[in-house]
Parts: sequence; C-alpha cells; structure tokens
Amino acid sequence: MKHYTSINDIDNIDSWIEEAKALKLMPLKHIDLGKNKTLGLLFFNSSLRTRLSTQKAALNLGMNPIVMNVSGDAWGLEFEDGTVMNGNTAEHIKEAAAVVSQYCDIIAVRAFPTLTDKAKDESEQVLEAFKKYASVPIVNMESATGHPLQALTDAITISEFSKKKKPKVVLSWAPHIKALPHAVANSFTQAMQKMDVDFVITNPEGYSLSLEITKDTPIIHNQEEAFKDADFVYVKNWSSYEDYGKVENKDPNWMITKEKLGNAKFMHCLPVRRNVIVEDAVLDSDSSIVIQQANNRTYAAQLVLKKILESNK
Amino acid sequence: MKHYTSINDIDNIDSWIEEAKALKLMPLKHIDLGKNKTLGLLFFNSSLRTRLSTQKAALNLGMNPIVMNVSGDAWGLEFEDGTVMNGNTAEHIKEAAAVVSQYCDIIAVRAFPTLTDKAKDESEQVLEAFKKYASVPIVNMESATGHPLQALTDAITISEFSKKKKPKVVLSWAPHIKALPHAVANSFTQAMQKMDVDFVITNPEGYSLSLEITKDTPIIHNQEEAFKDADFVYVKNWSSYEDYGKVENKDPNWMITKEKLGNAKFMHCLPVRRNVIVEDAVLDSDSSIVIQQANNRTYAAQLVLKKILESNK
Amino acid sequence: MKHYTSINDIDNIDSWIEEAKALKLMPLKHIDLGKNKTLGLLFFNSSLRTRLSTQKAALNLGMNPIVMNVSGDAWGLEFEDGTVMNGNTAEHIKEAAAVVSQYCDIIAVRAFPTLTDKAKDESEQVLEAFKKYASVPIVNMESATGHPLQALTDAITISEFSKKKKPKVVLSWAPHIKALPHAVANSFTQAMQKMDVDFVITNPEGYSLSLEITKDTPIIHNQEEAFKDADFVYVKNWSSYEDYGKVENKDPNWMITKEKLGNAKFMHCLPVRRNVIVEDAVLDSDSSIVIQQANNRTYAAQLVLKKILESNK
Repeated sequence: MKHYTSINDIDNIDSWIEEAKALKLMPLKHIDLGKNKTLGLLFFNSSLRTRLSTQKAALNLGMNPIVMNVSGDAWGLEFEDGTVMNGNTAEHIKEAAAVVSQYCDIIAVRAFPTLTDKAKDESEQVLEAFKKYASVPIVNMESATGHPLQALTDAITISEFSKKKKPKVVLSWAPHIKALPHAVANSFTQAMQKMDVDFVITNPEGYSLSLEITKDTPIIHNQEEAFKDADFVYVKNWSSYEDYGKVENKDPNWMITKEKLGNAKFMHCLPVRRNVIVEDAVLDSDSSIVIQQANNRTYAAQLVLKKILESNK
Repeated sequence: MKHYTSINDIDNIDSWIEEAKALKLMPLKHIDLGKNKTLGLLFFNSSLRTRLSTQKAALNLGMNPIVMNVSGDAWGLEFEDGTVMNGNTAEHIKEAAAVVSQYCDIIAVRAFPTLTDKAKDESEQVLEAFKKYASVPIVNMESATGHPLQALTDAITISEFSKKKKPKVVLSWAPHIKALPHAVANSFTQAMQKMDVDFVITNPEGYSLSLEITKDTPIIHNQEEAFKDADFVYVKNWSSYEDYGKVENKDPNWMITKEKLGNAKFMHCLPVRRNVIVEDAVLDSDSSIVIQQANNRTYAAQLVLKKILESNK
Repeated sequence: MKHYTSINDIDNIDSWIEEAKALKLMPLKHIDLGKNKTLGLLFFNSSLRTRLSTQKAALNLGMNPIVMNVSGDAWGLEFEDGTVMNGNTAEHIKEAAAVVSQYCDIIAVRAFPTLTDKAKDESEQVLEAFKKYASVPIVNMESATGHPLQALTDAITISEFSKKKKPKVVLSWAPHIKALPHAVANSFTQAMQKMDVDFVITNPEGYSLSLEITKDTPIIHNQEEAFKDADFVYVKNWSSYEDYGKVENKDPNWMITKEKLGNAKFMHCLPVRRNVIVEDAVLDSDSSIVIQQANNRTYAAQLVLKKILESNK
C-alpha cells in the first residue's frame, strides 16, 4: 500500500479488522517499526480526535509526529495550475508537498470541502495534489468527500460489538444547524458495502448521498421503518448533496431518541451536538458506544501507518 | 493520588518539597517511569511557562507530551447539562473528556475564570467536568480559582531560599490595568497556610480574597506595615473579589519598589508588567528570585506527574 | 560556537559545507548527541520549511523539539527598556528569555522586521534581546536582517550542484506584490562573499541592498547582462532598502523566465509566487533546484545544532 486516502485502499476489510484488533491488544508490539521516522500531520481544518489519536498511533509505532495547522502556522497554499499568484496564496502545493516530503516519511492531511463547489470537492483537489506532488505516502485525515480512517474505525467497532453473523446496520441522517460535509457518511457507506452486514440508509427526501457512493444500498425515507430490527444505528448529519451544500432541512423529528433506537447500538463519529442530533438519554445510556468507537481511532490509524511503514521498508 | 487539581491534593507539603529538590538534582533519574505514556496538555487559555515547563517535566519522565489549544485547534466545548446544542459549542465535555482519556494517560488542563460569573467560577465548571468525565488523572494547569502547580513551585522556592526556620512571607496585591484571576493568590495562600511560615496578606480595602481561602491569615491594609521584617514578598495583582472581577483600584502607590522591599526577596509567578506591578530596580536586582522561581515550575510539575504515574502503576 | 545568529558565526564555510554533506549521508549518526536535550522553537511569524526542517534536524540528533507560536500561544512580549508596561505587552523579554532558557537547552527564534523602522530592524532588537537575556545558545530562524540557516543551506546546495571550480552566481531581485524583508538576500550575499564564486547582484535602480552588506559585490541594474554565463541564479524579492520597506517597483519584466535563465540553475528560498517571481516553465523544469535546496535546510540546521551541542558538552 502506497497511500491511504480512500476506503478502497483496503484490500480485505475483514483481515484489516482482525489486524486492528490484534494491535489493540498489544499496541506497543511494533514500537521499533517507525523508529526515527516522522509523521507530518497537516491540518487545513479543526480536529480533536483525529489530531490526538493519529499522534498516539504514531507514537505507538515509535514515530515522531510533527503537527502543523497549515493556515495558522504557515500561509495560504495555491492548488490551481497556471495561476498568476498575486493574490492571497503564497506557496503552490507543487512546492509545498515536494518540500514537506523531504522532512516527513508519511504526510497525513485534513482538508474539508468547500460545500459550495461540487465539482471541485469531488475532484478532491487538495488530497489529489498531495498525492501527485508529494514523494511520500499520504494518509487522508478527512478530505472533501471521504474519511477512511473513521470508516475503518467504524468497521472495527461494529465487528467488536456485533453479536450476530450478519448484523443490521442503519446509517441515519439527523438534523444539524450548519452545513456539514458528506465525507463521514460516504466512507461509512463504502465500508459497510464491503462488510457482511445488512445495510440500509435513511434520510429525508432530497437528502440522499451521491448515487456513486450509495449504489445499490437501499435508501428508506421513513426513519422508523429503517430502524426496525436494527443492531447498529450510525448517525450523521450531512448537508444536501442535490442542492449542494445547502441546509434545507432541520426537521427535529429526525433527531435520534431512546425510543426510536430500541435495542440498537448508537454510533457517531463525534463531535455530536446533544439534543440536536441525538437526545441526552441515548448518549448517557449503554446503548451508546461512541466512546469505545472513538477509542478505535487510534488502532485504525496505527494499522494504516503500520501497513505503510511495512510497504516502504 | 488520582488527580492534582488543588493544593489540598498535597498530603505533606514538606516531604513534597524535599522530593522536588531531589528531582531537581537528578531530573532524569526516572526517565523510564513515563515511557510510552502520553500527557495531553489542553489549553483553553494562553500559556508560556506552564506550556514549556510541563512539557519539559513530562520529557524528563520519558513521557510523550501532546499539546492542544482547544479553541484554536478544535472547537468550542459545552459544559452545561441538558443543553440543546444549537449554538456555538460543537462538542460536550462528556464526550470530549471521555474520548481524550483514551489517547492520553494523564490530561493537564488550563481554563481561566469568566471573572463575570462568580458562582460558575467557584464551581470550577471546566476542571470538575474533566474530573467527572475523564477516566484518567487530571492535572490543573491553572483553573478558575487555583494554580496548584505554581503554588507548589512557590513553596519549593521559599524553602530553597529561606535562611530562617520560620521566615516571614507576605502576599501583596499590586496594581494592574486588566482584570486578573484570583487563582495564583488563592493557591499561594493555601500553600503558605500549610507551611511553617509567618504569613500575612496585604491588599487595599475592598480587595481581600475569598474568606474561604484566607481563613485566619492576617490581612493588613497598610502595605508598609505588612512588609516590615519580611523575608519574602510574593506579589500578584487580582481583580476585586467582592465586586467580582472588577478593576476598581489601580493605585500606583501599591507598586513594589526597591525601597519598600528592603531585604526581602521578591517573588512573582510571571508574566509581570514592569513598572506597573514592580519597578525595574527590583526585577533587575539580586532581590528578585523570579527566574529561579520559574525554573522550579519544571520540578513541581515533574513531581506531580511522577506521583500520578507511580499511583497508577 | 555559542550562538548561530549570523552568517559570520561560520568560521570556515568550506569545511561547514563538507560537514553538512557528511551529515546528509548519515543523518542519524549523532542520534545520541542531543539525547534528553530540548530545542525550543519560538515563532513570532509564520513558517513552513523552517518549522519542519528544524524539528527534523533536532530529531535526527535525538533532541526533543518544543514548538511555540509566541503571539498565539502566549502573549505580546516587550523589548524596550524602562517601559511602563501598561499597554499591549504582558511580559518583558528579560524575564521571558531567562525563563525559557531554563526549560530549553537551545532556543531558536524567528522574528521578522517591522519594515517601517529601519533603525530598529537593523538593531536586531528581538534577536539581540534573546542573546542578551537568555542563558542558552540562540539560533536565528530568520531575523529582521538575516536568515543564516537559509544561507548555509544555499551554500551547501551550490556546492553540491556546481560543476565548476568557481561558478558564477547571480542574486536577482524579482517583483512581488507585498513588502518583503531583506534577510534572505542579505545572508545569501554574505555567504557568497565567503565562498570561492564569481558573485554579482542584479536589481532595479533604487533597489540595492544595504551597502554594509553588498560591500564590493558588483551590482548590475541590467538583469540580462547580469545573467550572462550564470551557473546559478538565486532569486528573491525584497522591498526597497533606500525608501525603507516600500514597494515601489513591481515591474513584471524582472520576473524570471526560462529564456532569461539559459543554462543556469534556478534557486529560491521558497515560498515562491508562481508567475509573479518566476514563470511555471522554470519551476517545472530541471533547471529548478528549489526542492533539493529546501531538503538541505534539514542538514544546515542539523549541522548548526550539532556544533552548538558539541561546544556545550
């Protein structure tokens, strides 16, 4: 494996899950693997879990993490080709990516979508530029359209908590006050499509994800119907994909309640707005496994870094 | 010891002082104690000494420090229970503290008071929330009402520089242009009350600290009288406690001068505004021990981390 | 060597270049030299290459880097003597430098010029204050008037790529939209004056650097004439020195083109604005060695840190 930028970089999700569980049991087993190697974590956007868990994963492998908030610590980067750079950007990604590659053995990047320019977001301009111009492996810490470290985390968590051979997993949209990206929902959908689960998506009319992502996954617009016999309910808001990036629906009836959830486990990538996305009663109950889920962020990242380090030995 | 959030977490200040002095002589003696353990340093406010000395202390114990400016690097956290989170906060402390606990073996937190809401500040909302919802030990890097790492530092420094069995220590208010917290003065007062020193406080009328802190400590409103025969003068501005958080007095006559100080040693937690709090002549003389005092920040933090690591082995 | 704050701290540039090349071949050879030692990197201004490469250099020597953005992470520092500090600065450099010296074995500082107050900038107020009040070695990560880590990098790079005993090196001004410092151009000039190269500077009339820097180096106002038979063209914008800090010339005819460059190698410290300073065709060709140049930042910094560590053993 060269890069880890999409859930499609996982060749066999079941074996990856087993490897991640093994790492979780002995997180320091490979502490010499990354010795004297550097992981550069470049943030174009805010981060808590990803920031800390990816550093922790690197440390568990003996790597030295170097963190940089690109805009705050450095300056605006240019991603367009052929521009006359007499505006707000001071350095082109061609130079930046090539240069950083010389100081870091692996570069991890977080770069959210514009949510105003669908074509640009779907081209994964920032992530693809790093892949093109960096000379070292790139890890996606959430890009315009995907969050594959989160989705691997989610797959591990479902495997850990599942009591059935083939559990029913529901991805449910929930209301939110601000326009949020599709990245988490997209990658989760792709991960579930690779696993042996009964997977359905529920969202309001007009709020479906890209058809290129959902493919044959059933989309049910009746949340109650979708939740029937669910083992896992994975909740996430996203802004409209059709009317790209718009918040056209804040219907509180889509908020997740204890009653709706039934016996299913509640999952969310966090951060989660309480009593907007989900009521307190869910998060404060044993039905919620969001904390255990977040813990697996470390082992998902560690597995990815380990595979990259091993591929480049 | 589970947490270190208050000066009251010190069981025996004299033995702690001796242990800190021993660490200072051989700072790397326990370099294996914190091996592969992570200290998360979460800053809700600015920091120089605390930021650097706490990292240094962690490194001396072989720990990996991970620093995060919460607001800048992540987002606003919610501390109220039951809120409908449709405002500026994106994550509840319940999730944040539980999650971070999974990436860090110890969490150190700096969170200043509002200085507008006395009840909220005295409830130590942020610190208490971390204690409640985190599953790992919490270290106070200055909270709404206390700065126990600083006070331990101060106790060590007084012990080092004292030539008497029972020195006279004066805590003096001094003028400042902005509203400052009571945390340093509170914890210093509590530390002195635990030590075998002759301790008095001097501040203008109407500027006394909380009676729950000062207890039986004499409060003298005549600075000159208070300074008589002092061995150590510890200086700090604080905003009004009675008229909570207000700056009602900027009387330059309370500024510390070489003449006032006499033979006493001058102490201050820093940062200090020259020629507002204290005149240059004091800071630039041998009477000032603020630099040596700041050096002890490392060993105070290192002792606290060491005790926590040892308690959790 | 105590500090590394100017190119004049290099006693023998040829032997330094050879030492740096040796480090580059075996970067981890001295991994024990900096063990348990801390490098504090203090940024008063933005940084990408310097931030990352200096950390990488420290890690290669086994040091622990601690990074701080002074203004964002802490507060405004005061550099004037005798000030009544009732304004925006909260701590005097006298305290700050002395204190940080107790947590860090070496302090590296980046502090750009005002570009409005020539006398202040030329006094190197910030850097000199650190040298004066810190008790540990100071490394200049770009100050008001010099960038000696960059210039050492440049000397190494020219040595690596030179095919002649005495190559012709041209420093060329190029247009830019904002007022930029003279630091890189100054230190590069000083480095070239120490090397066995045929060195000339070309810039528009009225845009010459300080005579105290350029000394006997020929300054040619005709760019085409200056570039004749050049082996290396080092490009950099700077604001007017005569009419200090002003941008009086943005003449696009001074932009570097493939045609102008001929067979010379193109060098730039980066970040570089494409199609303002230099056209894409240059940067995207083999004539450009800016990426290899940036790589040498690590070894320049590593050599400096190594020399300081060895001097203080």
